[in-house]
Amino acid sequence: MRATVMYGAGDVRIENVPDATIIEPTDAVVRVTRACICGSDLWPYKTMEPSDNGRMMGHEAIGVVEAVGADVREIKHADLVVMPFAFSDGTCVFCHEGLQTSCVHGGFFGTVDVPGAQAEAVRVPQADGTLVVLPVGEDDALMPSLLTLSDVMGTGHHAAVTAKVGPGKIAAVVGDGAVGLCGVIAAKRLGAEQVILLGRHPDRIALAREFGATDVVSERGDEAIERVRELTDGYGVHAVLECVGLEQSELTAIQIARPGGAVGRVGVPQDETMPASQPAFYNNISVSGGPAPVRAYIEELLPDILEGSIEPGRVFDRVTGLDDVPDGYRAMNDREAIKVMVTP
Amino acid sequence: MRATVMYGAGDVRIENVPDATIIEPTDAVVRVTRACICGSDLWPYKTMEPSDNGRMMGHEAIGVVEAVGADVREIKHADLVVMPFAFSDGTCVFCHEGLQTSCVHGGFFGTVDVPGAQAEAVRVPQADGTLVVLPVGEDDALMPSLLTLSDVMGTGHHAAVTAKVGPGKIAAVVGDGAVGLCGVIAAKRLGAEQVILLGRHPDRIALAREFGATDVVSERGDEAIERVRELTDGYGVHAVLECVGLEQSELTAIQIARPGGAVGRVGVPQDETMPASQPAFYNNISVSGGPAPVRAYIEELLPDILEGSIEPGRVFDRVTGLDDVPDGYRAMNDREAIKVMVTP
Repeated sequence: MRATVMYGAGDVRIENVPDATIIEPTDAVVRVTRACICGSDLWPYKTMEPSDNGRMMGHEAIGVVEAVGADVREIKHADLVVMPFAFSDGTCVFCHEGLQTSCVHGGFFGTVDVPGAQAEAVRVPQADGTLVVLPVGEDDALMPSLLTLSDVMGTGHHAAVTAKVGPGKIAAVVGDGAVGLCGVIAAKRLGAEQVILLGRHPDRIALAREFGATDVVSERGDEAIERVRELTDGYGVHAVLECVGLEQSELTAIQIARPGGAVGRVGVPQDETMPASQPAFYNNISVSGGPAPVRAYIEELLPDILEGSIEPGRVFDRVTGLDDVPDGYRAMNDREAIKVMVTP
Repeated sequence: MRATVMYGAGDVRIENVPDATIIEPTDAVVRVTRACICGSDLWPYKTMEPSDNGRMMGHEAIGVVEAVGADVREIKHADLVVMPFAFSDGTCVFCHEGLQTSCVHGGFFGTVDVPGAQAEAVRVPQADGTLVVLPVGEDDALMPSLLTLSDVMGTGHHAAVTAKVGPGKIAAVVGDGAVGLCGVIAAKRLGAEQVILLGRHPDRIALAREFGATDVVSERGDEAIERVRELTDGYGVHAVLECVGLEQSELTAIQIARPGGAVGRVGVPQDETMPASQPAFYNNISVSGGPAPVRAYIEELLPDILEGSIEPGRVFDRVTGLDDVPDGYRAMNDREAIKVMVTP
């Protein structure tokens, strides 16, 4: 089968690889009908050391189940399923607590060890715990939005949940990438009365406003903090969705939070330490978040997508076949595209 | 009047200073009947640059109201009152949210600007918002425990609250100082089924066990983490009360938390950055806490002290008059005393 393999920074190739097959009795093999490129795929795209073996990329997919292992009970051949970016057994203590990204038998797709989904097919470990059957046809018009349940919409939602967004709260979203844009949707959906987007790209800002952003701050650093204070009676915001993961964005996130506020981090942190420990402490600001347990959120978010009350699929502004995936990486890295959907 | 003045690291003097008086119409003047030395007073005791003017120390007190300003309505002459370590107006948006340490008209006692309470008397700004009348006589046997409502018991409680201790949870307390010991009381009081103390001093460990600690870990660094994992089926603890504020203790706090767990910080952080940003992120560990809004907690904790169901006053293992306060600093700094009560 054909799949996307990264061999180093900037070196993404489409290659023939061994077919995905059942290895463990709890596996399923899914023929991928939709996949996509993630902002987090750009970190290795910028920094990966050259590798002879390469890494099969991709952790977001919808597809049709082609085969299941002997111990798979719930997922059936021919089911149309959405695949969260982490696999999980659905039965361990952390899965029961709704934190499937810490499943004791879990792991992540598209890593060095587990082949990814920017491919014609993907092996899904722990199929019963991982996959969710979708009640639509494989070419339903809602496909882009449903695909965001794999990661980006669930991740934006996790940022909002861990930032403690609720009715009447003031939220700010740091970062105007696809996750930040889904964070805007999530903050509005959870009842924020004001949603401030910190971002600089006109196309993304325009989409954020359609998603519910009430204010946009395009300044950076101290000027951004000053602008947010002006917009919030000088106090700062209750809930900050940190959707970047750089030192500067984390610093800004803490500095725009009001006393007693909360920062929900979903941008993968690129540094070993977190800045602004003392301001966070003196203002009693909580810092939470991490890899989103998107599996836990699908049941909550799916009805809203099916009803059309949220449209996170609008973050996809480019669609490509497998052959053009390398150019999709380039386009996202160059900020030509917000997020690229792949139809293998 | 006589008061405690710090002129630099290790240089604490008892001196005659101008009497505390009403300056603002919202002030009260309180004759101090009990004060104490705080672990946080030891930071300047170790590091303060020499100063010609000095700093009048102390932020914990019980006393009798001697005078009130023209705008004070609730607090009366001769009331016996407990004074939280921060003053607050009781009316601003943050006071209404129970975060009096961020009061927009608030501040802290014993700073360079606001004279402290290790003195014969103290001026209390925002008297109505700050002081709480105690329903006992000025020499009641419960005085030591009531005095902890100024800071140390409320601070231990804040650590437990922000670490999300609740019924059935496993808690760990990092630090066996007076705050850590009160954290043990607080964790047990909020329903933790297991309370692990990380500490090394036999006298403090013994007291922690009486307060409800079920396990003690005296190792440090990786060995401490290993021991906590052994005590928790390999998962780590739900709730970590960080009661020190050093890089190593914060690192340990994050490393012993289980996925989805929470760290509540009340140790004043001594570094600009927080360690272990990535482990905290990948395990979805929240880091919260800060200066405790002890004013908000007095109403909850006072009945338990009056009933005798908690006895935080046992953290005082030395009582001294004003003249011996400098030796009290030395004794706490040398770990000869856990916490020193002062009877001016």
